This record gives sequence, C-alpha cells and structure tokens, in this order.
Amino acid sequence: MTASEVLISEVGPRDGLQNCKSIMPTATKNRWIDALSKAGLREIEVGSFVSPKLLPQMADTAQVVEHAVKIRGLEVAVLVPNLKGAELAIKSGAHKITLPLSVSETHSIRNIRRTHDQVIEEARRISDLISTLPEDKRPHFEGSLSTAFGCTLEGPIDERVILKCAERLMDAGCSEVGISDTTGYGDPTSVRHLIRAVRGAIGAANVTGVHLHNTRGLGLANALAAYEEGITTFDSSLGGLGGCPTAPGASGNIVTEDLVFMFESMGVNTGVSLEGLFEARALLAEGLPEEELYGFTPNAGLPLGFAGAPVPEPA
Amino acid sequence: MTASEVLISEVGPRDGLQNCKSIMPTATKNRWIDALSKAGLREIEVGSFVSPKLLPQMADTAQVVEHAVKIRGLEVAVLVPNLKGAELAIKSGAHKITLPLSVSETHSIRNIRRTHDQVIEEARRISDLISTLPEDKRPHFEGSLSTAFGCTLEGPIDERVILKCAERLMDAGCSEVGISDTTGYGDPTSVRHLIRAVRGAIGAANVTGVHLHNTRGLGLANALAAYEEGITTFDSSLGGLGGCPTAPGASGNIVTEDLVFMFESMGVNTGVSLEGLFEARALLAEGLPEEELYGFTPNAGLPLGFAGAPVPEPA
Repeated sequence: MTASEVLISEVGPRDGLQNCKSIMPTATKNRWIDALSKAGLREIEVGSFVSPKLLPQMADTAQVVEHAVKIRGLEVAVLVPNLKGAELAIKSGAHKITLPLSVSETHSIRNIRRTHDQVIEEARRISDLISTLPEDKRPHFEGSLSTAFGCTLEGPIDERVILKCAERLMDAGCSEVGISDTTGYGDPTSVRHLIRAVRGAIGAANVTGVHLHNTRGLGLANALAAYEEGITTFDSSLGGLGGCPTAPGASGNIVTEDLVFMFESMGVNTGVSLEGLFEARALLAEGLPEEELYGFTPNAGLPLGFAGAPVPEPA
Repeated sequence: MTASEVLISEVGPRDGLQNCKSIMPTATKNRWIDALSKAGLREIEVGSFVSPKLLPQMADTAQVVEHAVKIRGLEVAVLVPNLKGAELAIKSGAHKITLPLSVSETHSIRNIRRTHDQVIEEARRISDLISTLPEDKRPHFEGSLSTAFGCTLEGPIDERVILKCAERLMDAGCSEVGISDTTGYGDPTSVRHLIRAVRGAIGAANVTGVHLHNTRGLGLANALAAYEEGITTFDSSLGGLGGCPTAPGASGNIVTEDLVFMFESMGVNTGVSLEGLFEARALLAEGLPEEELYGFTPNAGLPLGFAGAPVPEPA
C-alpha cells in the first residue's frame, strides 16, 4: 500500500521567503534553487505571483521562474491567488500552478480577499486559460485546500464545507487537489481521516499531495500518517522556513532535512541527498543571516552507519 | 488494535536533570514533581541511584523518592545501574526500578562500566533481592534495552544480540523489557520492526514501553509508529530536557508537551492536562534558567476549538 518512493516538493523559496522580513536578492534565490536542485529535489515552488505591494519578497518571481525552468528535470511550481497571477505564471513558463482555496472562508477573505465563490470563479478562469494553450504548454493546475485542519480565526471547519470545496475545485478544472495544514492544527488521526474523506469525495488519484506544518511539533508524525494513507507528494521547506503570515501564531513548515532523513531511514526513496541539503542550508543561512533555521538532523548529523555517513571505527 | 489510552512516563527529573550542568535543589525538584503530578502524570522517573561522584545531580534521589511516594496514585520510578542502586531504591520506597542494558556492549562499558554478562548478573541479583521482599513491597522491575536502534560508538547493533539481551533480561527475572532509542537513530520503520521482533522473542505482554529521543526530529513519528504497534507506555521529558551524556551528539528526549498534544488531538486519553504541563514548564524554566527548553506546543499554544482552549469569537 505504501510507496517505495516519494516526491519532496520544496516550498522554501515561496512559503519560506514570503514570511521573511528581509528580501533575498534574485541572484541569491537562484543560487539557492540551484543548490536545492543539485541536492536532488525534483520539484520546487520558487515563488508566488501576488501583488509586489503585498509581498515584495516575491516581486522577482518571473525572473526566478525563468532561471529555474532552465534546470533540467526540475518541476518549477508557483503559487497564484487569481487569474492575473496565473497569466504571469504561464508567461514565465512555470510547470505547475497552485491556487489556494482556504476552506475557512474568513481566512480566505483575510488572506486573498475572496469568498469561496470568487476563488472557484478564478479557478474556472485559470482552467479556461490553460485549455487555450497547446497541450505541451499546459501547466499542471493544483487547487489547494488551505486551513483544512482548522483555522486560527474560525476554529475547526465543517467537513462538508471542505469536501464541497474539493469537489468545486475539481469541477472548475483543477488537475488535482492538495490538502494543507496551514495552521498546524492537524494530528495523525485527523490527517488520515481527511485524506480518506477528500479521496472519497473526488477520487484517490486526484489527491496525491499534502502541505503540512510543524507548528506544534507534529509535522513528521502527520507526514508519516499521510504516507501510510498513500500520499506521495510532501511539501516541506529547507530549515523549516516559513508559515502563514495571515494566520497569527501559525509558523513553521516541515523541515526538509528531517523529512528526507525520516523517509530515507525508512528505506523510502526521496532521491535527495542529505549532504546536498546541508550545503543548501549553509547557503540559506548565509543569505538570510537574521532568520532562525529549524531542524534537528543538520545539528545532530547522520547516524553512524547511515548510508553515506562515515563507517564505524574499529571498537 | 491501538489503545484508547496511554501512559506518559515523565523522565525529566532523571534523564533531564542528569544531563544539566547545574544541580537542582531538592526542594525545587519536589515542587516540580508536584506540578508534574498535578498536571496528571501518573508515572515519573524521579532520579537515579548512581554514584554521586558520577552524577552529583542525582545525589538526593532517596530524598526525592521519599517525597514523591507520598503523592497519591503516583508510580515513582528510578533508574539503577546495579544491585547497590537497587538496594537504595528499595530502601527509599520506589515503586519501579529500571536497569539499563545497552545492547551496544561498547556503550555499556563506557556508560556503566559493565559487559553484558555483568549487567545480566546484576539483574539476577536485583531480582533475587526483590523476591525476598513481601509481595506488596516488591517494586516493578524493568530491564531497558538502551541504544537499541544503533550506537554512536558501534553503529547499528546486530538484531540477534538485541533479542538475546531481551531474553536474558527476562530470564534474569525482569518483569518486562523496554526499548530505548538512546541515540535518536530510530525511524518509524525500524521502531515497528524492533517492537515486533522483541515481542516475538519474549512475548507481547512483556514489551509495553518505549523510550524515544528526538535527536533528529523523528521522536513523535516514532512514538506514533510504536503506538500503532500496540505500545502503551511512552517515556518523555518536559521541555525535552535530557539525552545521554556518554553518547556524544545524542541529546533530546521526546517533549512531553508535544507528545501529550499529539495523543490528545488523536483522541487518545493521556489523563494529562496541557495547561498543567505549561505550568510545570514555567516552574522548570525558573529552576533551570540556563537550560534550553524544547517543544513547539508551548510556544504555539493550543488550537482554537481544542478541548480546554478558548472558544472561537464570533466572526
């Protein structure tokens, strides 16, 4: 039932940087993305096509995409809040577009100033736009259910609302629907439950990815539960950078280094080199000296006898 | 298959304090233990009967036990390295005695200066001593397999050695055998595997507890895996205090606050109040101002709508 390999989708350059006070220069972003890709990451969310007034950290997303798409084999993903963002994303050549739909309508309005109906309408317009493109130019279009495990403004969200959102995103033309624990409210039981419920509503093949946070330390336990439910794509961020700026107290993506260590220890192939991640982390620390980086594996180092780690000295 | 309730065994006053540079005064320890118990913890490892020269932090263990056994309903546990420690533990009135046996013989010699044969001999002597006591005065006697998922000195340990150690501990008279990830080398797959293997060797009823570390961030994921294998007792430490002083780089017990949050979120009853833990944590921070405390839940707070958390304000 569980997969022998998983896809780690690095979201640091988007979800991470958009939550930093300082703005990383484009050249530094590009070097960092190069290092992430060199470590073996095959999908990277490199930016967000939002108003530069709202998120000046993301103002150079088009240039970053233009750089990233030159990296052979890399799936270049971006986040967009609306049709205008999708137009820019397509123009820049991004391979994957994610449109967040916060199942908490209060959060949706606060975060992207749109009701559920309005977001679904954007999804439909984006889907229509994509359908006008030649088949080999069409980006993958994911709808993402944000605040799926509860919202800091509304609390728990009625599951019927969540399933309805998932169905409407598919009806509007999304290729798949992701589940996001924006607020770090999820636990292994609710993660398992919601994955089953959403898959029940729109089909298992249409739910392959989760975006989990480590706000209350449960990030990896939740990822394990999701993996055991058959999820194969896991968002995470190098150094745990990022979170959600409009959900107060909700910070901390899953740390890529620890997530990769977990899967590789379990014998689940990620294709990612931990040493490569440590190098990319050093670059990140250099580029953002004021930001706290999270993660345990980088500090503890790899276990003695771990594949790629130094061999035991004779006792 | 999984339990509707679990026992959290708090090891902060032992595994935590023995790794601190400063020595906590007896009265402060007692107040802290009171607060832990008040939060609902039903088992606390309050100290270790080792040489005060080796671990001066534990020199007052007898006095701490004498205080703790007065707390109604509290299972008072201690760690002992040998018969002499067990004699002191019994004299003090402890309810539970844990004897560690490091499955890495190199680590065993380094940690308690004894080979496997010598530790088993101590187990036998302790068991003989216990059998001379009136039945209602006999402490529960646990053997603990340390470095079960690998050793920082030897690397991975041959599973046949581990199972042999488990069998010998039971033969020597232990009431049960615990599995300890002293070095934080375990992952969900190896945790599941070893629990099954040890249970296969000595019987499922004799393996109910695990002692996991969070060295590489996998502590809660490993606890989840152990829980799903039917384990019902989980060691953890408030603020993640502690680790293992003789295994370099191996620090960080599972954080009690996050572990309790995980189980309670999952609907698994711990009997522990998170607010009570936060109070005990404040006391600990006061008592050990120089020590870094870990854990995410205390900083993030409880989710809106979580049992006991403030109710949502009208939107």
